[in-house]
Amino acid sequence: MDRSLAEGVLYTDQYQLTMAQLYYRQGLAERPARFEHFFRRYPDYGRHQAGYCINAGAAWLADWIRTVRFDDASLGQLRSHLNREGEPLFGDDFLGWLSDVGDFSSLRLEAIPEGRVVHPNVPLTVVEGPLALAQLLETSLLNHLNFQTLIATKASRVVEAARGGGVLEFGMRRAPERGATAASRASLVGGAFGSSNVGLSHALGFTPMGTHAHSLVQVFMALGEGELGAFRAYADLYPDDCLLLVDTINTIGSGVPNAITVFDELRSRGHEPVGIRLDSGDLAHLAVRASAMLDEAGFTEPIIVISSSLDEITIWQILNQITIEAPQYDQDPARVIGRLVYGVGTRMATSEGAPSLDGVYKLVAVHDGGGGDGAGTADGRDWEPAIKLSDTPAKVVNPGRKKVWRIHSARGTATADLLALSDETLIEPLVLHHPSAPGVARTLTATQIGGREELLEPFDPWTVVDENEAVEAARQRRLADLDRLDVGVRRIVNPHVYHVSLSEGAWRLKHDLMARMGET
Amino acid sequence: MDRSLAEGVLYTDQYQLTMAQLYYRQGLAERPARFEHFFRRYPDYGRHQAGYCINAGAAWLADWIRTVRFDDASLGQLRSHLNREGEPLFGDDFLGWLSDVGDFSSLRLEAIPEGRVVHPNVPLTVVEGPLALAQLLETSLLNHLNFQTLIATKASRVVEAARGGGVLEFGMRRAPERGATAASRASLVGGAFGSSNVGLSHALGFTPMGTHAHSLVQVFMALGEGELGAFRAYADLYPDDCLLLVDTINTIGSGVPNAITVFDELRSRGHEPVGIRLDSGDLAHLAVRASAMLDEAGFTEPIIVISSSLDEITIWQILNQITIEAPQYDQDPARVIGRLVYGVGTRMATSEGAPSLDGVYKLVAVHDGGGGDGAGTADGRDWEPAIKLSDTPAKVVNPGRKKVWRIHSARGTATADLLALSDETLIEPLVLHHPSAPGVARTLTATQIGGREELLEPFDPWTVVDENEAVEAARQRRLADLDRLDVGVRRIVNPHVYHVSLSEGAWRLKHDLMARMGET
Repeated sequence: MDRSLAEGVLYTDQYQLTMAQLYYRQGLAERPARFEHFFRRYPDYGRHQAGYCINAGAAWLADWIRTVRFDDASLGQLRSHLNREGEPLFGDDFLGWLSDVGDFSSLRLEAIPEGRVVHPNVPLTVVEGPLALAQLLETSLLNHLNFQTLIATKASRVVEAARGGGVLEFGMRRAPERGATAASRASLVGGAFGSSNVGLSHALGFTPMGTHAHSLVQVFMALGEGELGAFRAYADLYPDDCLLLVDTINTIGSGVPNAITVFDELRSRGHEPVGIRLDSGDLAHLAVRASAMLDEAGFTEPIIVISSSLDEITIWQILNQITIEAPQYDQDPARVIGRLVYGVGTRMATSEGAPSLDGVYKLVAVHDGGGGDGAGTADGRDWEPAIKLSDTPAKVVNPGRKKVWRIHSARGTATADLLALSDETLIEPLVLHHPSAPGVARTLTATQIGGREELLEPFDPWTVVDENEAVEAARQRRLADLDRLDVGVRRIVNPHVYHVSLSEGAWRLKHDLMARMGET
Repeated sequence: MDRSLAEGVLYTDQYQLTMAQLYYRQGLAERPARFEHFFRRYPDYGRHQAGYCINAGAAWLADWIRTVRFDDASLGQLRSHLNREGEPLFGDDFLGWLSDVGDFSSLRLEAIPEGRVVHPNVPLTVVEGPLALAQLLETSLLNHLNFQTLIATKASRVVEAARGGGVLEFGMRRAPERGATAASRASLVGGAFGSSNVGLSHALGFTPMGTHAHSLVQVFMALGEGELGAFRAYADLYPDDCLLLVDTINTIGSGVPNAITVFDELRSRGHEPVGIRLDSGDLAHLAVRASAMLDEAGFTEPIIVISSSLDEITIWQILNQITIEAPQYDQDPARVIGRLVYGVGTRMATSEGAPSLDGVYKLVAVHDGGGGDGAGTADGRDWEPAIKLSDTPAKVVNPGRKKVWRIHSARGTATADLLALSDETLIEPLVLHHPSAPGVARTLTATQIGGREELLEPFDPWTVVDENEAVEAARQRRLADLDRLDVGVRRIVNPHVYHVSLSEGAWRLKHDLMARMGET
């Protein structure tokens, strides 16, 4: 399959192209328009729910934007598309225009940086420029940003559940095909300390992680050398990186004792073992038992990697169980938990329970076409705000060109995200309007406000970033934002609701437009 | 990001490489081994469950196998991987061996063809050849096959729920990043008649499908021309492909009347409209009302595309509601249902409710190393069967080199899949053993058996297939297999359980090995 064709500039939905041609024929193709990307709801995993998301994916969207072209191969495919009458669906005039335009470089973008904590209805990405191009970008933009934000969010929850214990991502085999690459990266953005994904790790400048599988033990068993033979062979080859999977036959009866035998041999040769891995059974119970056995044999440092269908809730439950069960075996729960590392696969790489984020990309303003090109005007006077109504008040799009402000309390925690008009001057006391419930507002006086920052930053896909630096910077932003986030909002189950509000100006514009629409 | 590095030959888990090096150092790298790929459980979507799966993904796995190389760039990355002592983790001897081997061409594969109905614990793919290479292939094989089989299965259920109504896939924007490409293809294999995914459709020789979005109407509204203006512009440009999205403002009050106005204008110019699309609200109710309005205006042929969070259950419920509600509006339910087309997005492209398939890849035999190379021997006498025990009887791997037979009843329906040893002669009456419950068996006499067929076929990744032919052939296989599948097994909720059994020989081998393991 020709991936360069499938995932190049035609990586979009058909209707983006039919609309773009229509705009072209109507003389609207180059009319400046503004689209804003946001999601409507936090992921809801069923029995547990996210109270925040971790923004991710912009760097790879930038890669796509920077490298795709309306080239002859792509345009040739469009030219071959015949309508129901057997005539070309796309005219040579429109295809010629695409060819002349060449790429997406005439669009101006803003984005909230990767790794930042983000909330529903807040514009995470803004696209301004020629209507037809901004429309054509929609599908790819959503495809790149929805999934990585979804997975970074899930990873962040898993890492929070692990209470500082390291999380290793290894979901590749059951991840959504090539989406595995994005899932591994997003997991790193979300706080995983490493991934088993070899190619992706090298591409990002991370060290891929992993030890051995059950099949290694099986091979040695089939050849008559047993589990101990497999462990010895592994320790001989990797004396300083020896982490043994102990559950192929029987964890307590065979795996851990054999591992200890091999660890003793390693130590006698001057090497310290790294640890063991438990991949089945009652992981909490086995971790307590294995930890005691390792301690008793004099191996107090080796880690215990646990894996097998882990997610934030199973990790939470395992830590609870260890807290109760460890004392029954004369173990200190904190010590057992302190040596745990978490191998998390499928449930993180697919965001089990909520496998999609409902990010959308909505038209919020169209330039009126008079005077200058408008694309760069700061005052917005040439722009017509656009609105999309809905029977559900919460789904009515917030119209107009907007900025996003994060308001910090006097204590330094983030207290609300505020959507204001681009040309609006914020005056204290700040009135924060509920985005859809009329009359519901909260007022913050100057003394209640510790500070405010703009979240959207210029985002230039043509600036090539270092992959490793981009991921590391995103990880730092996540940590900084979580530090300033109310712990109730960070709760894994039934979190507090963070406020996303409209400014006085944004609220008035929305209501004026809704009233005007109601009259027509 | 360098996708050629991330998704080339290093598209694997780290432990596959550490194990491969160990096999190399132990002189086992080229020892023939056999791995079998199978899934353990049908997808369980929560309130509904699959009773069969549609096999998919082999053609793209073949693309990957055929095109990746242990080239200098990849080996250079491995060479750069340092262990905890700061020394290279991978030796030049092992990397040199990989370089000499070059690719996966020394592996011999078998597979059940794409599009076929498949069941748990049945080997869907078989890999035989040098142990280290077969091990290295695991992650990519599972990654390519698990996801497409998952999505083809979901699509097949959606298509069954639609009772012959066309299903159009358009999940790209919320699909798992580049997994969108595989999701679109798998949806076609599973029975969708088309996709909105432009690049993928062209790459597969399908016509991409789509019309326009709400943003088109919004643009015209912002410019003062309203919904009618948008519809007119669309109909003018696409007079023979005119399908209008009627829910941007108010479906019954504005959208459908405006569509009818434009349809009248179209007809007066000699064109027939294609239809309308409903994307929000009570789709069943709106379909009944819109159908009546279209009929009354003389448009009995146009289709009604419905979309908005559809899956097999919502479609089922919508059809039920139409059956009840249509007569209340003097409409024939069959006529309303007959004009429906289903736009299905996120929930199909992510397999909502069950976003992963638990496919595994297990060692089932290792050559004993004596005598010939063994890789091609038919009698299997040089092979040591391998087994992996588990506390859960159903998870004990079925050992040995096997064939898969599908047994058809005298009525021509598939009655069981039978795993037999490769060199076993099946004798009637056939004894079908339950794979894990001792003593549970069913016997089929010659007169009860209408026929049997082998499901695994030689699978040569080096044979380039035509993409369009591969998908079309898979679609035909699905239809043929569903025709021969018990309707109870095809049920969307709580389906009948299809039998997957062991032959006399496969059963004896498994139990002899389990007994032998129990003694050690």
